[in-house]
Amino acid sequence: IRKVLVIGAGQFGRALALGLVEGGADVSVLDPREDRIAVLSSRISQAIIGSGTDVRVLRGLDVETFDQVVNAIGEESLEASIVCTQLLRELGAKEVIARVVSDLHKRIVESLGATRTIHPEEHTAKTLARRIARPELRSELELAEGARLLELALPEKWIGKTLADVDLRKRYGVTVVAVRTGSEGGRRLVPSPSPEDPLVRGDELMVVGPKDGMDRVLKELG
Amino acid sequence: IRKVLVIGAGQFGRALALGLVEGGADVSVLDPREDRIAVLSSRISQAIIGSGTDVRVLRGLDVETFDQVVNAIGEESLEASIVCTQLLRELGAKEVIARVVSDLHKRIVESLGATRTIHPEEHTAKTLARRIARPELRSELELAEGARLLELALPEKWIGKTLADVDLRKRYGVTVVAVRTGSEGGRRLVPSPSPEDPLVRGDELMVVGPKDGMDRVLKELG
Repeated sequence: IRKVLVIGAGQFGRALALGLVEGGADVSVLDPREDRIAVLSSRISQAIIGSGTDVRVLRGLDVETFDQVVNAIGEESLEASIVCTQLLRELGAKEVIARVVSDLHKRIVESLGATRTIHPEEHTAKTLARRIARPELRSELELAEGARLLELALPEKWIGKTLADVDLRKRYGVTVVAVRTGSEGGRRLVPSPSPEDPLVRGDELMVVGPKDGMDRVLKELG
Repeated sequence: IRKVLVIGAGQFGRALALGLVEGGADVSVLDPREDRIAVLSSRISQAIIGSGTDVRVLRGLDVETFDQVVNAIGEESLEASIVCTQLLRELGAKEVIARVVSDLHKRIVESLGATRTIHPEEHTAKTLARRIARPELRSELELAEGARLLELALPEKWIGKTLADVDLRKRYGVTVVAVRTGSEGGRRLVPSPSPEDPLVRGDELMVVGPKDGMDRVLKELG
C-alpha cells in the first residue's frame, strides 16, 4: 500500500486525498484549518491540524517515511508553497509533488528539488480549449514518448468510405485501433476494425500514432 | 472559425484563451484588471477591460453572437460567477461553460442554465490521484458511454506470456489495441498486436473496454 502525505486541504488537496483513498492508498492530510481537516478525518488514516511551513510539525510527521508527499498549498500563498517544498527536501522526503500556480512558481519549486509539478488550472484549461476549438475531437490522451491517442467523431467526408480508403496509416503513420459504432443504446466498440468495413455516420474512431502524424490528421479535417 | 468569449483572465481563463487561439478559434477576453488584459491583448482578437457582472458591458459585447461563452470567474468570487452566469443566459448566450469551485457552485450555475461546468482542481486531482495510487497505470482516458482506455506498464506476472495466454478479452471483455515495445530510443508502437508474440519487460499495453472490465483488470494487478 502506498503511503501518501497531502499538505493543504483546499479544493485540490481535498479532492486528491479522497481520490487516493478510493485508489487504495494510505493517506494523511495536514492543514492549519480545523474545518478543512474535520470533513476529511473520518475518511483518511491521519488528519492533522497544523501548518506545512512549520518545521516542527513536518519533523513530527516523519515525512521521509511516505512514498509521496504532495505539496498542495499553491492556492493560498506562493511563499508558503516554497517554504514547504524546501523543508520537505531538507527533511528527506522521497518524492515531492508540488501544485503550482504559474510558470515561475514551477521553476522555483523545481529548483528546490520538487520531483514533479502540477498546475490544475493550466492542465484543465488545455483540455477544455482543445474540446471547444475541435468539437470533432471527443477526447485525447498524451501517451509516452510523443505518441498520442485521439477519439474522433467520424468526419462528414469519410462517411461511406472504408478504413482502407481513408488509409491513415500510409498517409500519416497513424492507426485506427478501434471504432465505436451502432445506434444509441446498442453501441459497441469494435477493436482492430476491418479495413474493408464501411464507416457510417455516428461512428467514432480511436486513432493512435505519433504526435506529428496526428496533427496532420487534424489539419486534414480542417 | 469558432468565436469564443472568455470572461475572467485569471490562471484558468488565460491558459484557456491561449489554448483556444492555438486551436484556431477567434477569442475575446473580458477582465476588469488592466494588467491581465494587457498581457493577452497582442495574442487575441478582442481584449476588453470590464466586469463580467456588469450588464451594460455584457450587452455591449453581443454575447449571443459567440459560439461559446466561458465564465472563468470562479476563482475570485462565487457571487460574481453566479451573477455573470445569470446575465449571460438573460442576454441569450448560446452556450455557457462555467468554471466552478465546488459541488454546490456547480449545482447553482447548472440551475441557472450553464450548459457545461468544469472544476479544474477536482479534474486534475482525480488524474493525479490515479497516477499516484496506481503507478502501473501510465495514463487513462474516459471514452464515451462507459468505455475506457488504459495505458498500462506490463505487470511483472505477464512478462514472457503472450496476449493469448493473458486472454483479457475472454476474461474481462477488454482488448489490447496496441503495444509499445523496444528499448529506449528505439521504441515503437505496434497496433493490433499479434496474440502470439511474447510480452517483454518494459512493454506498455493500450487496453480498451468497458469500465467494469477495466476495473477487474486493475484488481487482478493488485
